[in-house]
Amino acid sequence: MTQHTLDFWYEFASTYSYPAAMRVEAAASAAGVRVRFRPFLLGPIFGALGWTDSPFNIYPVKGRYMWRDMERICEGLGLPLNLPPLRFPQNGLKAARLALAGEADGWTGDFTRAVYSANFAQARDISDDAVLAEILAGLGVDGTAAVAAANAPDVKARLKAQTDEAVALGIFGAPSFTVGEELFWGNDRLEQAVQWAARG
Amino acid sequence: MTQHTLDFWYEFASTYSYPAAMRVEAAASAAGVRVRFRPFLLGPIFGALGWTDSPFNIYPVKGRYMWRDMERICEGLGLPLNLPPLRFPQNGLKAARLALAGEADGWTGDFTRAVYSANFAQARDISDDAVLAEILAGLGVDGTAAVAAANAPDVKARLKAQTDEAVALGIFGAPSFTVGEELFWGNDRLEQAVQWAARG
Repeated sequence: MTQHTLDFWYEFASTYSYPAAMRVEAAASAAGVRVRFRPFLLGPIFGALGWTDSPFNIYPVKGRYMWRDMERICEGLGLPLNLPPLRFPQNGLKAARLALAGEADGWTGDFTRAVYSANFAQARDISDDAVLAEILAGLGVDGTAAVAAANAPDVKARLKAQTDEAVALGIFGAPSFTVGEELFWGNDRLEQAVQWAARG
Repeated sequence: MTQHTLDFWYEFASTYSYPAAMRVEAAASAAGVRVRFRPFLLGPIFGALGWTDSPFNIYPVKGRYMWRDMERICEGLGLPLNLPPLRFPQNGLKAARLALAGEADGWTGDFTRAVYSANFAQARDISDDAVLAEILAGLGVDGTAAVAAANAPDVKARLKAQTDEAVALGIFGAPSFTVGEELFWGNDRLEQAVQWAARG
């Protein structure tokens, strides 16, 4: 564990990961902390808990509250939020693999933010190849090469390993933040996690 | 709905209700907001969601996180927390009825804080008549009269009605805060709820 590093664990389908993703880099940077973007998949983790859908769909009373809470949070942050959503949860598998593939050229953060905007602000289908291609083009990334990299066996294996690592860290939802083995869950723990990382 | 009033919904078994209960009155008072203490029972609400135990016990990975999170929160607030707990969840039925009975004489807030301290700081059994009697005596309350009032049919009915009202407001966990029909869930929404109430 390097000092002053914060691991930001996110799933592209996750609502509360949207405000976290949009502000984590700025918040960390202001505290002298480096962020590692750690996309992972909630599906296997929820499956192990016995859930075959988002708990916000399984328990409608929690879902109704979550959307209202998201409205208040996004309004407070000045983030656009388009409700009702196109679909919830969306399938974030392709986007998660692309995010990993972007690490080599350093566009993972920008890509991550653009995918969350597409999902929650623009009501676009983030599992649609054309939408992902447009996002990549908007970042000046060679989409054909990026998709080829994202579909390579090593990226698929890394996403699986990253999800396994999330489980090993005790992660059960997104967004989560870790500093070494210290775990913080939820967009509302972002500041606390950054402070923890800054203490080194 | 009176302006500048915040309803604080809590269950004596609930961990995150402890830090909320200890600070809600001071936080509200500083913002010119009146707090109404609204004890209710989570058991029937969890039962309707299909849970026969706390989700922190049903899902151990969430429970482990919650206790660590509680440690950090209580340390940050300077609140004592005694872990492992005597038992979790404890049965808060008697305490909830007493809290309602205390409204007439205005000791509900002090009693509520004393019961949370007994549960989470002193590892005492809050369903034990002797513990409750000691708490009442410590507040200078006539325990015999208080217990008689708490066991009267009207208080039992009011607790049931209050729990029904919580369900009608979309409450699914504790602590929760409401300002009119606006719902906030969790100790970490206390400040936001107080601000909402202060806007009137």
